[in-house]
Amino acid sequence: MAEVGSTAAVSQFVAETPADAIPSEVLHEAKRTLINVLAVGLSASVDTSVGMLQSWDGDGSSDGGVASVIGRGRAGIERAALVNGYLAHLQDYDDTHFPTILHPSAPTWPAALAAAEQRHASGLETLAAFAIGGEVACRVAMSVHPWHYDAGWHITGTTGVFGAVASAARLLGLTSAVSEQALGLAGTHAAGVRETFGTNGKALHAGHSAAAGLRAAYLAEAGFTGPPAALEGRRGFWAVHSPNGHDARWIEQIGADREQWELLNNGLKAFANGIVSQPLQDAVIQLRNAHDLKAGQVTAIEARVHPLVLELMNRPDPQVGLEGKFSHQHCAAVALVDGAGHDAQFSDARVRDPEIVALRSKVRATVDDAMREDEVHVTIRLDGDAEHSIHIEHATGSPENPMTDGQLENKFSTLANEVIGAERAGELLEATWKIDEVTDIGSFMALARQQQRARS
Amino acid sequence: MAEVGSTAAVSQFVAETPADAIPSEVLHEAKRTLINVLAVGLSASVDTSVGMLQSWDGDGSSDGGVASVIGRGRAGIERAALVNGYLAHLQDYDDTHFPTILHPSAPTWPAALAAAEQRHASGLETLAAFAIGGEVACRVAMSVHPWHYDAGWHITGTTGVFGAVASAARLLGLTSAVSEQALGLAGTHAAGVRETFGTNGKALHAGHSAAAGLRAAYLAEAGFTGPPAALEGRRGFWAVHSPNGHDARWIEQIGADREQWELLNNGLKAFANGIVSQPLQDAVIQLRNAHDLKAGQVTAIEARVHPLVLELMNRPDPQVGLEGKFSHQHCAAVALVDGAGHDAQFSDARVRDPEIVALRSKVRATVDDAMREDEVHVTIRLDGDAEHSIHIEHATGSPENPMTDGQLENKFSTLANEVIGAERAGELLEATWKIDEVTDIGSFMALARQQQRARS
Repeated sequence: MAEVGSTAAVSQFVAETPADAIPSEVLHEAKRTLINVLAVGLSASVDTSVGMLQSWDGDGSSDGGVASVIGRGRAGIERAALVNGYLAHLQDYDDTHFPTILHPSAPTWPAALAAAEQRHASGLETLAAFAIGGEVACRVAMSVHPWHYDAGWHITGTTGVFGAVASAARLLGLTSAVSEQALGLAGTHAAGVRETFGTNGKALHAGHSAAAGLRAAYLAEAGFTGPPAALEGRRGFWAVHSPNGHDARWIEQIGADREQWELLNNGLKAFANGIVSQPLQDAVIQLRNAHDLKAGQVTAIEARVHPLVLELMNRPDPQVGLEGKFSHQHCAAVALVDGAGHDAQFSDARVRDPEIVALRSKVRATVDDAMREDEVHVTIRLDGDAEHSIHIEHATGSPENPMTDGQLENKFSTLANEVIGAERAGELLEATWKIDEVTDIGSFMALARQQQRARS
Repeated sequence: MAEVGSTAAVSQFVAETPADAIPSEVLHEAKRTLINVLAVGLSASVDTSVGMLQSWDGDGSSDGGVASVIGRGRAGIERAALVNGYLAHLQDYDDTHFPTILHPSAPTWPAALAAAEQRHASGLETLAAFAIGGEVACRVAMSVHPWHYDAGWHITGTTGVFGAVASAARLLGLTSAVSEQALGLAGTHAAGVRETFGTNGKALHAGHSAAAGLRAAYLAEAGFTGPPAALEGRRGFWAVHSPNGHDARWIEQIGADREQWELLNNGLKAFANGIVSQPLQDAVIQLRNAHDLKAGQVTAIEARVHPLVLELMNRPDPQVGLEGKFSHQHCAAVALVDGAGHDAQFSDARVRDPEIVALRSKVRATVDDAMREDEVHVTIRLDGDAEHSIHIEHATGSPENPMTDGQLENKFSTLANEVIGAERAGELLEATWKIDEVTDIGSFMALARQQQRARS
């Protein structure tokens, strides 16, 4: 037994952790996740499904409001949180907490940003609120992993709601007791099943969690009652959403060791597809760049891979872009031709490009049980018996080999320039590195909207 | 194996059931559920928590819109569905599908009404959409009962989302194929745990389901993709939300036998508290009225009850109104004094009233294993050794002994008159009985708002 209940430990952490107790490397990582959210959010903002979601009710009531939708206009805070959560997860290009495959930023950042804009919070307060909310989401995820995901839940949808409510509660300045009720009001709406994978419904989970968590914090502030003990209660999250097991220690020790932040086990993806093929893409791009390889020279791409690559991503002949994201053959082929794996490499057109189709047929992956998930060995054979090999110990984007700040900036620019232009993209990037100097987050978020001057 | 998948059977039923194939007694029951929703919704609309929920985002974006909030003003359709669902369930005074203890109307009617107002549907179309959505909710509930509720889920929150999306999909005229995706987008947001019971979070489940189901239908219409096989998919509702068991036949036979509608197993509550004490209240009121009993005469109220009465509602000395709802002693005592069990009988003041407190101490319930849940035997002993006894076979409001239309009208008037005045309450009641003659549901809903002329 902990001295306080498990959920009470979380709410104390949310309400009472001094901002200056958050290690500087955690705040730096939080900035990096925001750059990543803005990058992939801007890139996703032009997808037609985003407009559907932003104005689904068709009554015009969703236009205007005090919060910003990334790459778009303004909306009420609930709608902004919903759409930003969706945007951040749409391309499967967001961050990944490696121990649990939770994507902590997509549900958490949008709730933090919406509450911060509505309350005119400073950049530092917003950053701290995300760091705290992200920690809560990751630790709730750790507490139910692997039983919960194995039962069919999409952990980003379910545990994400705790990250969202925690960051919003922090920004609203709720007391520990009120935060605990907010956690209860949010936790009861934890939702999202893996059946939706491959549809727009998957990214909707992150948006739903962001909005439901945000709402719970505001309702609790207003005096709406929710249950304490959201996690450990007899009919709470652990009992109902993870009946096959849970480990309360991840929760009870939250904040106890100030150097132990789960956000430091969070990686930023180098490629816009499932994590398991990323070592392969990384290897192909490194060989391509080192030896200036062209598709026409290549006779074979041979890889020794972790078993999951074939279990989850063996799709030799994808027909549409989304299938390409689940094809290690396409991932490797397009990596050699384009030297990249952004969302643009997974368009229908790219999947059907004859040069890529031809190269896909030359990709041969074999299982090597000795390989870790973030490891790969690749040999590329060329006309005339030349060959080049590489062994990737830890793929770029894993905790052991994180994207450098420079690589992240490159990802950001590639994705953001196309949507808001290079000039404003540069301004936004610089502002994000300096977000702790911003006095009102609203001025910062204006840079992330499509039409900066549409409403002032 | 059915000829079509389980979820496809539901979507066919939603999209393709001709309105004139719905039996007239089902449509009559649908009207009765609407009268009940309006009655309890109006009564609940003055609760302070309702204002918190309606404008939780505090940015004014929730004012105005095309949909009506019962007893209040206008809102956007999502907010209206959220608040109306909350209102309808807040007093625990809504309908109950007896086989599953699902409350089908609270999540389903608000989604139907919001979509109908936005699309200017007729009264008959709206009524049919509710009948269809209610049937879907009840049958999804049957398919997972009792495993699902026993696992800690609040079945009104979870299966209610299917009722909401079904009625909205029907009103939007979605095809069977698109309806199936809408069911998938809704089903993945099925949520609500029993840990919230006793807090505002419980009623929020119904509002959340109404809003999430409504949104799913609109998104599917716009072209947002969702998974088919929401129920039977490998990671769908049955696998994830009811891993301990399910019975697909309830779904596969939906619409097959046109006389077999679960809405006919739905009862309207005579009292604003948990169902298990209602036979006791019914008995006390019948004896009180037959013999003109006063509290001062009573020396004992003795009841032989079903075991659940003591398991769930044994609370001899409640201190606040909400506890009174879970005290069979208070329910019986206030029934004798007031002859009623509306929400007004469960105020803090009523729970602390000295006459009621004194009478509560004279209530003695003993378990009789031969009693059904809707059965009771009560003896009231009076000064001077007189006594009166009654045996209730089926409490008022059970499927075997439904509230008569007259009793329902009386419940409606008692609750509605206080909020919108007797004149407009009478007008609204008459309009509901004739809702199948209404050409645009908007004119009807104007009667249910607080300030009919605030916006036109």
